[in-house]
Amino acid sequence: MSSVASITAPASKSGDELRQRQTLSTLTTPALLLDRDKLRANAARLSTHIGGLGGLIRPHVKTHKSINVTRDIIAAGHVRGITVSTLKEAEYFFDHGLRDVFYAVGISPNKFPQARDLISKGLDLKVTLDTPEMARMLADYGSEEGVMFPVLVELDTDGHRSGTNPEGEELLAIGEILHKSPGVELRGVMTHAGESYHCRSDESLLALARQERDRSVVAAERLRALGYPCPIVSIGSTPTALRIDDLTGVTEVRAGVYSTFDLVMAGVGVCSIDDIALSVLVTVTGYQKEKQWIISDGGWMAMSRDRGTANQEKDYGYGAVVDIDGNPLPLIMSGANQEHGVISPAEQGQSIDFSNYPLGSQLRILPNHACATAAQFREINVLENGILTESWSRAGGW
Amino acid sequence: MSSVASITAPASKSGDELRQRQTLSTLTTPALLLDRDKLRANAARLSTHIGGLGGLIRPHVKTHKSINVTRDIIAAGHVRGITVSTLKEAEYFFDHGLRDVFYAVGISPNKFPQARDLISKGLDLKVTLDTPEMARMLADYGSEEGVMFPVLVELDTDGHRSGTNPEGEELLAIGEILHKSPGVELRGVMTHAGESYHCRSDESLLALARQERDRSVVAAERLRALGYPCPIVSIGSTPTALRIDDLTGVTEVRAGVYSTFDLVMAGVGVCSIDDIALSVLVTVTGYQKEKQWIISDGGWMAMSRDRGTANQEKDYGYGAVVDIDGNPLPLIMSGANQEHGVISPAEQGQSIDFSNYPLGSQLRILPNHACATAAQFREINVLENGILTESWSRAGGW
Repeated sequence: MSSVASITAPASKSGDELRQRQTLSTLTTPALLLDRDKLRANAARLSTHIGGLGGLIRPHVKTHKSINVTRDIIAAGHVRGITVSTLKEAEYFFDHGLRDVFYAVGISPNKFPQARDLISKGLDLKVTLDTPEMARMLADYGSEEGVMFPVLVELDTDGHRSGTNPEGEELLAIGEILHKSPGVELRGVMTHAGESYHCRSDESLLALARQERDRSVVAAERLRALGYPCPIVSIGSTPTALRIDDLTGVTEVRAGVYSTFDLVMAGVGVCSIDDIALSVLVTVTGYQKEKQWIISDGGWMAMSRDRGTANQEKDYGYGAVVDIDGNPLPLIMSGANQEHGVISPAEQGQSIDFSNYPLGSQLRILPNHACATAAQFREINVLENGILTESWSRAGGW
Repeated sequence: MSSVASITAPASKSGDELRQRQTLSTLTTPALLLDRDKLRANAARLSTHIGGLGGLIRPHVKTHKSINVTRDIIAAGHVRGITVSTLKEAEYFFDHGLRDVFYAVGISPNKFPQARDLISKGLDLKVTLDTPEMARMLADYGSEEGVMFPVLVELDTDGHRSGTNPEGEELLAIGEILHKSPGVELRGVMTHAGESYHCRSDESLLALARQERDRSVVAAERLRALGYPCPIVSIGSTPTALRIDDLTGVTEVRAGVYSTFDLVMAGVGVCSIDDIALSVLVTVTGYQKEKQWIISDGGWMAMSRDRGTANQEKDYGYGAVVDIDGNPLPLIMSGANQEHGVISPAEQGQSIDFSNYPLGSQLRILPNHACATAAQFREINVLENGILTESWSRAGGW
């Protein structure tokens, strides 16, 4: 253990393994890793499913915020435009040549100028809102500025978050403003079945997916019955997108984390642990052997504070631990300080053979929530066939 | 409510208030705000306390990672050097002229070259470790590279995290390597009483502060008894630093979050809510009135996923809500999606007068954990006397 080289590149390994370890060992840890083969397989899976139903996907890019990841997703097929969570993302992807963008977070007046600028430059930027008041404010602003804002009305189809009632009177009031006012255009309706993250059975998931679809189609029909065109019906969440069995009336499906997956999605049952394409590379820096702790240099600054598996059947703490090749280890990341991780046995009563984890050796941590973990990094290190090939930047901020 | 200007600058307000609202209204939300007057008062408080005990502070800059904030802290007095949580921070502060830096996270071999480069350029960079094995690896590396690494041995004085036993044999083994090997220099001992975050009474806090001091002084004396010089005895955490009553044997006190404070520190009892200098500015984007929800554009991407008050007497969800002037409101941020915040009554059974919170109006959210929330932003917007004066950048990454 006296030589650094001997720790990061054990002599007993094959040439390929050596190469991988040597390249990973050059990374400053903690570092974000993306397994591109898994990314492509995940992208192909949803593409095949939605394409098979005759539908199109509008991938949400908020998980990775990377043009390169998005290109791999588009290459999988059946993709129409993208979904973003911030106008900063809209700008970044527009700068990289994408023209069809839906900003899926309710717009507010202080963001009107930023959206106007993007539309004026040629971006087909659709925005969303869920009140007649905001529709009126946007219409007035668009009219004053001589810009037309395309709008998808946000629907609440599962009581999860924001959105207006698909069966309510308010929807029609919003539709009327958007249809009749200069400065705005009713482009369609959209919803996000966020409650799907809490589904624990295939039956409940299928039921929620159908409800998300049915209530959205009803809302669109109600608007059309008043003579308001409503071309887009946009639904989706990763679990419901993967489970929906008929897309009649739906024009596009949105999903984001399906491209990388994470432990929460594995807990919901829509992927396996082995499908998870994102991980954080950490280095063993110490131990507390009496407590059965390995200390690493990946704390919550690297993993985020997301404890999304805490309420699932299997709680992974801050993440599941795999070896440098991605093979599962009987360990979880049980605790986190800002730049320290605590790694413990996955099951109570088990003990760690510390000689398997020498000081300076590397481990990988699979995240609870890929969106939150990826957000802690500015660069994505790409693995292909286990070999470090590229480093991709990502957008951030607002 | 049809005019944007009327929402962000109500006509009934005084000239100063108008100016503040107009400047805050120009910010893209969510945005990080720092009340500089509170920052200075917090810095002065610890400076007065530690200075009064004849001690010096080595402030931990991991909360804000900003040279400007650090300058305000240094101006408060009784400061010796700084503490950092990453080598990226060390590099950033060195680039801004600071020369005396302690990197307080256990070093590992893949970080040796980065540390070597900084030392070679003239930074007095002290590192830490807690095993004889890592001491040997660093000594070998320093010797091969012709660099001398100054080391503070990390002690575990409260069972919180990493560190070697101050009364154990391992400490002496580490001391021997550091004292006798070329390439390394025993510069002292250090500890962090992280368990202080869990203290709920003044008595337990004072007892822990004294334990942190006493066990560190014992460790230093044990090393000196073997003839190993041990000039630095570095202790600290925000709660213990504010409570320690005698610094005999201690050469410096480290603390970080005391400069901004947060809800967790208020829960520990070492500050009041009104002392909290950091907040996140958000915009009201919608409602779910039947659920008594205000929806904002500040989700967990802005606040972080930190739920540090969840186990305290008062659970603020993702944060406490104050108005644009910092006055408390009977609201908390009860839920968070990536870019959506859910704001609810602070007490069950209360209801919201939604007319007080029009669409497009702004609110501020006080964070559970300042370090985690600040990390979500790349810029710090500075308020002085309630007026937006500057925007400061911060370091990030590794």
